[in-house]
Amino acid sequence: MADALDAFVEAARGRIEAALDRYLPKPPSCPPLVNEAMRYSVFAGGKRFRPILTLAAADAIGPSAADLAVPAACAVELIHTYSLIHDDLPAMDNDTLRRGRPTLHTVYGDGIAILAGDALQAEAFALVAREPGTSDGTICDRKLRAVQVLGEAAGAAGMVGGQAIDLEAAGQAIGRTIVLDRAGLQAMHLRKTGALIRAAATSGAIMAGGDPGAIAAVDEWASEVGLAFQIVDDILDVEGSAEGLGKTAGKDAARAKPTYPSLFGLERSREMAQECVDRAWRILKNARLTGGQLGAIAEWVVRRKT
Amino acid sequence: MADALDAFVEAARGRIEAALDRYLPKPPSCPPLVNEAMRYSVFAGGKRFRPILTLAAADAIGPSAADLAVPAACAVELIHTYSLIHDDLPAMDNDTLRRGRPTLHTVYGDGIAILAGDALQAEAFALVAREPGTSDGTICDRKLRAVQVLGEAAGAAGMVGGQAIDLEAAGQAIGRTIVLDRAGLQAMHLRKTGALIRAAATSGAIMAGGDPGAIAAVDEWASEVGLAFQIVDDILDVEGSAEGLGKTAGKDAARAKPTYPSLFGLERSREMAQECVDRAWRILKNARLTGGQLGAIAEWVVRRKT
Repeated sequence: MADALDAFVEAARGRIEAALDRYLPKPPSCPPLVNEAMRYSVFAGGKRFRPILTLAAADAIGPSAADLAVPAACAVELIHTYSLIHDDLPAMDNDTLRRGRPTLHTVYGDGIAILAGDALQAEAFALVAREPGTSDGTICDRKLRAVQVLGEAAGAAGMVGGQAIDLEAAGQAIGRTIVLDRAGLQAMHLRKTGALIRAAATSGAIMAGGDPGAIAAVDEWASEVGLAFQIVDDILDVEGSAEGLGKTAGKDAARAKPTYPSLFGLERSREMAQECVDRAWRILKNARLTGGQLGAIAEWVVRRKT
Repeated sequence: MADALDAFVEAARGRIEAALDRYLPKPPSCPPLVNEAMRYSVFAGGKRFRPILTLAAADAIGPSAADLAVPAACAVELIHTYSLIHDDLPAMDNDTLRRGRPTLHTVYGDGIAILAGDALQAEAFALVAREPGTSDGTICDRKLRAVQVLGEAAGAAGMVGGQAIDLEAAGQAIGRTIVLDRAGLQAMHLRKTGALIRAAATSGAIMAGGDPGAIAAVDEWASEVGLAFQIVDDILDVEGSAEGLGKTAGKDAARAKPTYPSLFGLERSREMAQECVDRAWRILKNARLTGGQLGAIAEWVVRRKT
């Protein structure tokens, strides 16, 4: 099972890397400095977890249609990358290290980092609208639904809204602070990381032509995976080292940010992550979607060490 | 003629204001702080120049179809608003006054301002994909082309690329500076303001069902209008007052930014703006698009005092 997952992930990652390289705008239409800055962050050795979810969901729905999901997968990665660039800024998390390299703003300055992030978000939507180039009405409808799902997940009710709650809880909004309890923490993460992970998976299911029931099941599965992913992230922040994570470990505790381990304890946090995986399997079984790699991916999320 | 333009603009502005209010995400799905921040900037008394171009282009192509262009018009305004929020940040132009009010980051902090801008961009694309809600294949195709046109205009080869060149010329990119000559200044503005103005107009023409020739003519017309708009902006920065502009006048000169008046002189700059309008009229005549308000809008652009 792990071998099949490894093979799938390796192949998917290869297709995503090649497509990202092909899709990113280049000089002379793109000014050299923005091009460099975007590529610095897009090709920084990311795991490509989210776009792999997109391709895995498409593959679980219909292996022959998985190619259609490559542009959406790349769009998800561009949105994720832009969010990391902006989150790392001094005005937000003020991180100088990301995946073991200096963060973009420390290399090019805050202004260019803001702009490179802005450009990546715009390219993401242009990409889904443009690729694959076809006048087929069915594909056109899927692309439009993917744009909507990704836009709503990235926006104020999704990822950005979650990050805003996080900033407000950290006392970084002028004159405003909120205190997150357990329910508030969960609600924040559902937006901050959960929304884009769900959209990554559902946009894959949409592009592969899934019926409404299958798309809904993929969405539920992704909710569980997203929650498990966040819990494990928090656990790794406590246990991990800067080497393994490629970022500053213990950072959450240093900022007094509420985390799953700080609110529930390490042991209970681990159990909670496993419960997500158990629910994820049940969802796949009920929807008869156990044929692909979605179950193995959920298992990997709680097993990972980085 | 001016009366007809005034009536058109007033009606268009009313529809845009109402639609923006309806389309922006609200609590509880949108966290209250992001909602407040987005609305602070979206409803800051902007002229709605770009979305009016969208509706005017749609109206010139087919008055009965102009309703279909309202979501694209709002998307253009959301993208424009987000770009102003980010441009005003300390890491970019460091402006504390915009349209006579404190800029967003001075009220909510830089982090929330970055996020509110990010959210507005995401909402723009989600909006065009979602509205008007229909399964009509023709409309679906137009919406997808509008997403692509807007995404490419907002991205690295367009608006954001232009702003990056501007930052680089102002010495705000770490370790990099470029010097803009006349051609470089023109190329920067074609991206920074020209690209979104063109996309504003062409997305209107697309949504109204224009044929390729009509869409191309609207695009050329908008290029001339965009250039005239920028030249007049530079002239007003020299001549204007903080009261009239609602922002700090003389700011370009203070930062030693190259402008049309600084490179060509005031008199020649005024002539250049008028030449744009003359070319804009010829384009409309050749394309038989003189029936609507596009000609009068081009005239207004060089006549305006704020």
